[in-house]
Amino acid sequence: MAGNAFGELFKVTTFGESHGPAIGCVIDGVPPGLDLSQPDIQKDLDRRKPGQSDVTTQRKESDTVEILSGVFEGKTTGTPIALIIRNADHQSKDYENIKDIFRPGHADYTFFQKFGIRDHRGGGRSSGRETAARVAAGAVAKKILLKHGIAITAYTLAIGGVHADTIDLSVIEENIVRSPDLEAAANMVKKINAARESGDSVGGIIEAVIVGVPAGLGDPVFDKLEARLSHAVMSIGAVKGIEFGSGFSSANMYGSQHNDEVSIVDGKVVTGHNFAGGISGGISNGESINFRLAVKPTSSIAARQQAATKDMALSDIEIKGRHDPCLTPRIVPVVEAMTALVIADCILLQQSLRP
Amino acid sequence: MAGNAFGELFKVTTFGESHGPAIGCVIDGVPPGLDLSQPDIQKDLDRRKPGQSDVTTQRKESDTVEILSGVFEGKTTGTPIALIIRNADHQSKDYENIKDIFRPGHADYTFFQKFGIRDHRGGGRSSGRETAARVAAGAVAKKILLKHGIAITAYTLAIGGVHADTIDLSVIEENIVRSPDLEAAANMVKKINAARESGDSVGGIIEAVIVGVPAGLGDPVFDKLEARLSHAVMSIGAVKGIEFGSGFSSANMYGSQHNDEVSIVDGKVVTGHNFAGGISGGISNGESINFRLAVKPTSSIAARQQAATKDMALSDIEIKGRHDPCLTPRIVPVVEAMTALVIADCILLQQSLRP
Amino acid sequence: MAGNAFGELFKVTTFGESHGPAIGCVIDGVPPGLDLSQPDIQKDLDRRKPGQSDVTTQRKESDTVEILSGVFEGKTTGTPIALIIRNADHQSKDYENIKDIFRPGHADYTFFQKFGIRDHRGGGRSSGRETAARVAAGAVAKKILLKHGIAITAYTLAIGGVHADTIDLSVIEENIVRSPDLEAAANMVKKINAARESGDSVGGIIEAVIVGVPAGLGDPVFDKLEARLSHAVMSIGAVKGIEFGSGFSSANMYGSQHNDEVSIVDGKVVTGHNFAGGISGGISNGESINFRLAVKPTSSIAARQQAATKDMALSDIEIKGRHDPCLTPRIVPVVEAMTALVIADCILLQQSLRP
Amino acid sequence: MAGNAFGELFKVTTFGESHGPAIGCVIDGVPPGLDLSQPDIQKDLDRRKPGQSDVTTQRKESDTVEILSGVFEGKTTGTPIALIIRNADHQSKDYENIKDIFRPGHADYTFFQKFGIRDHRGGGRSSGRETAARVAAGAVAKKILLKHGIAITAYTLAIGGVHADTIDLSVIEENIVRSPDLEAAANMVKKINAARESGDSVGGIIEAVIVGVPAGLGDPVFDKLEARLSHAVMSIGAVKGIEFGSGFSSANMYGSQHNDEVSIVDGKVVTGHNFAGGISGGISNGESINFRLAVKPTSSIAARQQAATKDMALSDIEIKGRHDPCLTPRIVPVVEAMTALVIADCILLQQSLRP
Repeated sequence: MAGNAFGELFKVTTFGESHGPAIGCVIDGVPPGLDLSQPDIQKDLDRRKPGQSDVTTQRKESDTVEILSGVFEGKTTGTPIALIIRNADHQSKDYENIKDIFRPGHADYTFFQKFGIRDHRGGGRSSGRETAARVAAGAVAKKILLKHGIAITAYTLAIGGVHADTIDLSVIEENIVRSPDLEAAANMVKKINAARESGDSVGGIIEAVIVGVPAGLGDPVFDKLEARLSHAVMSIGAVKGIEFGSGFSSANMYGSQHNDEVSIVDGKVVTGHNFAGGISGGISNGESINFRLAVKPTSSIAARQQAATKDMALSDIEIKGRHDPCLTPRIVPVVEAMTALVIADCILLQQSLRP
Repeated sequence: MAGNAFGELFKVTTFGESHGPAIGCVIDGVPPGLDLSQPDIQKDLDRRKPGQSDVTTQRKESDTVEILSGVFEGKTTGTPIALIIRNADHQSKDYENIKDIFRPGHADYTFFQKFGIRDHRGGGRSSGRETAARVAAGAVAKKILLKHGIAITAYTLAIGGVHADTIDLSVIEENIVRSPDLEAAANMVKKINAARESGDSVGGIIEAVIVGVPAGLGDPVFDKLEARLSHAVMSIGAVKGIEFGSGFSSANMYGSQHNDEVSIVDGKVVTGHNFAGGISGGISNGESINFRLAVKPTSSIAARQQAATKDMALSDIEIKGRHDPCLTPRIVPVVEAMTALVIADCILLQQSLRP
Repeated sequence: MAGNAFGELFKVTTFGESHGPAIGCVIDGVPPGLDLSQPDIQKDLDRRKPGQSDVTTQRKESDTVEILSGVFEGKTTGTPIALIIRNADHQSKDYENIKDIFRPGHADYTFFQKFGIRDHRGGGRSSGRETAARVAAGAVAKKILLKHGIAITAYTLAIGGVHADTIDLSVIEENIVRSPDLEAAANMVKKINAARESGDSVGGIIEAVIVGVPAGLGDPVFDKLEARLSHAVMSIGAVKGIEFGSGFSSANMYGSQHNDEVSIVDGKVVTGHNFAGGISGGISNGESINFRLAVKPTSSIAARQQAATKDMALSDIEIKGRHDPCLTPRIVPVVEAMTALVIADCILLQQSLRP
Repeated sequence: MAGNAFGELFKVTTFGESHGPAIGCVIDGVPPGLDLSQPDIQKDLDRRKPGQSDVTTQRKESDTVEILSGVFEGKTTGTPIALIIRNADHQSKDYENIKDIFRPGHADYTFFQKFGIRDHRGGGRSSGRETAARVAAGAVAKKILLKHGIAITAYTLAIGGVHADTIDLSVIEENIVRSPDLEAAANMVKKINAARESGDSVGGIIEAVIVGVPAGLGDPVFDKLEARLSHAVMSIGAVKGIEFGSGFSSANMYGSQHNDEVSIVDGKVVTGHNFAGGISGGISNGESINFRLAVKPTSSIAARQQAATKDMALSDIEIKGRHDPCLTPRIVPVVEAMTALVIADCILLQQSLRP
């Protein structure tokens, strides 16, 4: 299936290269009758688009989305929704000098090994630009979530070792690194700027929280909710790890501690610390779902490096182009989108099982 | 698809409850002409089966597998391979007392919410017993890997805070916790025994290493090799997190550091520290693949706890049954099996793309 | 996917060879809470099993099905239902003489070309015996149909040129050829016996009618209801064609005639002749669905024939074994089963779209 | 999955409504390195497009296709190929008068029942216009077939009772009804014109022949090659039946006759009459594959009819718009396209099994 589609009933197929005519997606399986208009999607794309601040790439893309099908008189019709975004500012000439050289940390070498073809223009299909189509699809998925009272929020928990100490969701979109802690945010920006000035980049940690998920979503065996979400999130470039609830700290805990204190609140089972992260046995338990993911530092850095060439020799490389010195802030909306795709799909699947 | 199937071309569908007549699987898409006999599969099942040592559950199951189809004269025929394992020692009466109560940390509550049905006999389908079918399927997948010179090894890196300091693969099967460090292994056993004696359980960390994977497996977008492997591994019960290569530590690294030193060895690109974990842009790069996962402490503990009942009240619970005080050692072969399923599938997919 | 699975949400995977230890299936996606017991399934299997009359093969198989999973206290649990049927009367020695020769009209040659493996024992996986697993799965699907008031009836419309003139559904199971016309049935039996006595076989036509299907099942583009049903029915061995409603006769009709007289009955749209066959634009229209299929004469005949050998030479062949001189009567329950699988799946899909 | 995608490894997802901004498709799973340019696709679209002759609709559409992704420097890259065709001549006003009335023979009523939404503009997604996207995808599939020396030809065998007597493939594109018999073609044209002049329409029969298919494509059970092809072809609007090789005539044949004369030619097994239609046991046998399909007369006719309204009353209807008085000639390239999708997919699947 070549890996360009995601989801079972709510199924998204994306297409497009960084420097081709357009990117986009087709969403099949959207229920009929949902309110949907271009601005609903554009709003999310604007959060991801490049050039929003001085800690992101200066590539200029309006990322204007066009709805080609599946919507009639402001409502989804139940037929496929096709969305396209024309590429505007693709300066392919920036990439001429790396035509025969594989950028360190990038997919250049592995793409060539897999396909036997080298599309050197900004990474082609492996470019992070591909995630714009995911964000567009996520905006449609959120319409289903909205109907069910489910909300997803992701934010930057740490950048280059600087951690958010407080979690204030109201400030996330007020700072350019999307941190829930304004003071930490200021230090994160400094960290990024320092890295960029020395031709370098930094990594970070993103946390996502989903509230309002009813108990019963997900599946007991191969498609546990953690498995689906991990698949979704680990498919975002630069993400190196994911953990739910207690995560890696669970390895040091006792069962008596991890089982946590059980109580009944408003007719629902709740636990003291939500170590389960809102999922038990692969199925949502009605508490809020939370997970964290590690984002590696951007591979494209200005500093001179050694790299392998197509002839399997070593050569110096200087990467020009315009790159994000830290990917974390721009990955935040992508995490939300991928999460929305999973939850929307699980809702439809559960409806088929118990309408 | 209800989540009981895994894989695209090498596709496994599992079935069976902990206390029903049998568990098993059907494997569709196995190429013809592979040598395969019952002992090939039994050998792996014996590594996972209960009652192997005093740090595992004392449930007695021979876990004898029968091949029902797909093999003729010692070779796979290309038709589906059905495998069944009869349940022998299922003492359902152990579970009568929890018929109307949801065990803390278990899927009891969420299963009931999802299906509206309560199979209280040892967790039914959510029991770890289900993983025997995965191990059986994995043994078949390994036949494809063997042909391509690929080997997977998983081991216990830590239990309850005790870490392996040395990695000696030759000693893994010589100690009951499957640690690559015999000295650490002894301390891990102590940790487990102490927990069990106090009616408790402990968590741990498993590492997996895959050697011999050619460059080019995996896909660039939604089905990145990390995404596929994460889906596979995060679908194992009790696993709370996964990380590849540099993992969560990448969040604190600089790009110049993470890109690593590139060199050419034997006509292949290699890096100094393999921070990428053997995968770049979602596609294997020819280096060894490595990942780590966190295993929470067993939810079934002997100590008395508070739990929710079907009537949404609180009640004391004492879990009888026979349980593993630490799941980590028995999850090791399951991780290998799930990894084998993913790699075998990716090999077939790549063959379809570039035969 | 190797073609051993069928369905999207109600998904059946079958396994087993004619002369291996067992055949069977795993059904994933069965909703929880349906009444289901072994006799429900056995009843349908008994209609398909060999040796029921003197116009069918004399192979003796009790075709006793065992439920291995997915049912608890008489109800489906929502987890996979595994069913197995042990092969009893497999006289593989009958097939020793055709080890190196490809039976005319059979899959022997094509199997060998596809898999490079020859399982000569009664056709292996290509044997009609495989359809027992479909019938077992169909019996489970019918439980969903029952809940929605949908009934499927198939019958023999013609055998060897003898046609049923009247359609009396009540007599179908009263005659060994499953014809809705007892007088025609008697002549059909004569036709079959005459063919058998001269070492030959005959073909026939089956009609299927589905009543109670609500308007709205099926899909508008690639998965039109006719497309799904055709896929299902054309996957039964020996079926050479299918037509819905007006079928091939529509090629000679005018639009004014085919559009038919529209009227409103009980708040539903109905047509005079149901030329549409109950499906418009790929979606059920609320009228009864009907289709017909052509069954070729059995390939296994007693008369001496010329056949190709593995060495690509010609050789005389005499097929021993025990074979049906006409497949039509035994295919009737298989057609019902495959139809049930499609309709059950469409019901679940529609529930996911508009619960 | 909503039925807007087709294929397993060579997977096409189509989108678009008759009177929306655009139609198109995304093709995932195209192997890298195939020569592909816009004219390759345009050529096939030109064969299907409206307004080619006076026996087709006079809607004017240039049907100009744009390649948005997946092709670089004239070659496929292995990433998804997105194709769009802007709708130009969509006179939605023609449809205002049928806003609240369901056209006889159309999907209007069933769409409304399924989705609860009425897109009255020319049938929306159920319009035959949707098949342009299939033809575009088929043109890409043919690139794979070309590499394997496989050629597909479809033609009009009969229209309104006028049959082709001779089969001369060289004249098919020389006559506006795409018949292989020029004399019959002239009579077919007369038949169509007579129908149109009386505000009516006629049906027909199409035959397709595939040459060069190697033995071994297709699958033995649910995904028999006939099953796949039937699914593909029966998903084309207006098609009411399909038959392979001997087809419905097999119902009147004896086994001794149908098994046919076997001989060996050039090291391959061939039969006297190819009653099998090139497929045995669901797998291609190396002979040419052939099938025929019935096309009903166009539902849109000029003559006044009675129809059901949204309020479930009867009303007179006069369908304006511009419609084909016979769909058969324009369906010919769609049949070729759907056939190409199936064969290309089977080639990739077989490569994954036995590279």
